[in-house]
Amino acid sequence: MAIQAFTGVLAPVLTPFDRDLRPNARKLAAFCKSLLAQGCTALAPFGTNSEANSMSVEERIELLDQILAAGIDAKKLMPGTGASALTDAVRATRHAVAKGCGGVLLLPPFYYKNMSDEGFYRFFAEVIERVGDARLKVYLYHIPPQTIQGLSRDLIERLIKAYPAAVVGIKDSSGDWNNTAALLKRFPGFGTFAGSDDFLLATMRGGGVGCITATGNVNARMIRKLYDAWQQPDADQKQAEISTVRKTVQRHPMIPAMKALMAAWSGDQDWLNVRPPFVPLSAEQGRALAADVAKLGCKGPEMVPA
Amino acid sequence: MAIQAFTGVLAPVLTPFDRDLRPNARKLAAFCKSLLAQGCTALAPFGTNSEANSMSVEERIELLDQILAAGIDAKKLMPGTGASALTDAVRATRHAVAKGCGGVLLLPPFYYKNMSDEGFYRFFAEVIERVGDARLKVYLYHIPPQTIQGLSRDLIERLIKAYPAAVVGIKDSSGDWNNTAALLKRFPGFGTFAGSDDFLLATMRGGGVGCITATGNVNARMIRKLYDAWQQPDADQKQAEISTVRKTVQRHPMIPAMKALMAAWSGDQDWLNVRPPFVPLSAEQGRALAADVAKLGCKGPEMVPA
Repeated sequence: MAIQAFTGVLAPVLTPFDRDLRPNARKLAAFCKSLLAQGCTALAPFGTNSEANSMSVEERIELLDQILAAGIDAKKLMPGTGASALTDAVRATRHAVAKGCGGVLLLPPFYYKNMSDEGFYRFFAEVIERVGDARLKVYLYHIPPQTIQGLSRDLIERLIKAYPAAVVGIKDSSGDWNNTAALLKRFPGFGTFAGSDDFLLATMRGGGVGCITATGNVNARMIRKLYDAWQQPDADQKQAEISTVRKTVQRHPMIPAMKALMAAWSGDQDWLNVRPPFVPLSAEQGRALAADVAKLGCKGPEMVPA
Repeated sequence: MAIQAFTGVLAPVLTPFDRDLRPNARKLAAFCKSLLAQGCTALAPFGTNSEANSMSVEERIELLDQILAAGIDAKKLMPGTGASALTDAVRATRHAVAKGCGGVLLLPPFYYKNMSDEGFYRFFAEVIERVGDARLKVYLYHIPPQTIQGLSRDLIERLIKAYPAAVVGIKDSSGDWNNTAALLKRFPGFGTFAGSDDFLLATMRGGGVGCITATGNVNARMIRKLYDAWQQPDADQKQAEISTVRKTVQRHPMIPAMKALMAAWSGDQDWLNVRPPFVPLSAEQGRALAADVAKLGCKGPEMVPA
């Protein structure tokens, strides 16, 4: 097993869009800096909650270049580079590695359903072989709520055995603790991240390395405090608190809700913008949500990039 | 309702890949010509069975340009231009319209699940508005086996009312005859295509315009004969015959099976190549399948492009 490049609390960074739905790189870079200042140990831009799959590979590549140019440390970035098309996934992954990113978060191909493990294996193998760079560190992205077909443990084992230096971890966004527990047991030393802060404490107790969590965008400080203190007596209490914040945000669809919080905190209504198929919340809904999570100790960053 | 640009039997054209998994434009153009000669009334390149979602938008754009340059009539093409990312779908659709394609087959965004009708509406509306070309003819692509979330009839109605000149038809690949029947009843005059030749006869009897069917790639002649004779007394018999061919091909995963038939018929083993997550059949499996379908009257084109 390779030494873990990433541990702790990562946010799949929300992508700010202007009114014409173009990504705003300046605002994204400022938000990345804010998240690192709030306690994120690293960042996973272009994840599911970044609306990455509503952006073209060109847009993701250009944005990555722009946030690096703005001074974000490539080693602290685990960009999502997955795509339905083999050639898109190769292109995005190759670019991330060339730019020195600490790792990539790699989805399985997600259009065609009922594929075999053999087919998924060939996809990941083909990406790794085509990128052909010893610096490549792949975090597999298991997220059956979106891809429907997830990554079986036999497939994961086969990939680790074939590419031990490249396949170093996984984000488990199944929402199923039994799956995370089974991963931790079967692959000790592998970089297993919970896909939600709901399972952060259980994941740490089971030998995992942290969480890559949507609410890292809006509640990084509280989540980081649990990560730092997971062996302390009040860890269960802290876990309950961050899970309550998450539940409150999840009364709305997660991405529009987090963007509405950002709009409420910053006063910048462009934070409400989402690309279809998402639908934005109203500024009013954002302010109400901000009031609700404030009561739970989640008050947003001191300086919100607008 | 607009006058239908497309009727009859369309094949979602298989994409030939070389050994390095690059698309072979010369072979694709030859195959398009062969399909039209065999009886396809038009073609739907870059559909699900074309492995379009395993190709980048650039690759699809380049291939479209190449088959047009090889002499395929743009008016006879309904390329798939859907993508998970708004900007990709806009780019592919704009290109197809600019090149004079008779229509486009447009998927809903397919990564994020549990989206609202409002979100899907905004996606289609945004594509139509951004393309902003009076020549655009959209065929909606309802394929819940792959996208999981399909297109509700209320959504379809709203799109037709908002964009009556642009939203002219649908491919129903639900595999659920009740859905096709409900579409035909609710939207008379709309261009409803069965997504499978299994439902060709029922669709024609219900007022539909034809089928866009995977097996159009390997059994165009028999399917076209049914289309031409659907009001004749032996139509049910013809329907049963083409459905038996389809069932035989479907003993294997559809795309690798059809490519294996092409390899067997042409002797060109490169036809076996598929991009992951698909896994190719063997040449031997292709020859066995060819023997099986030959007994059912499906013998492949006289001239198979190699």
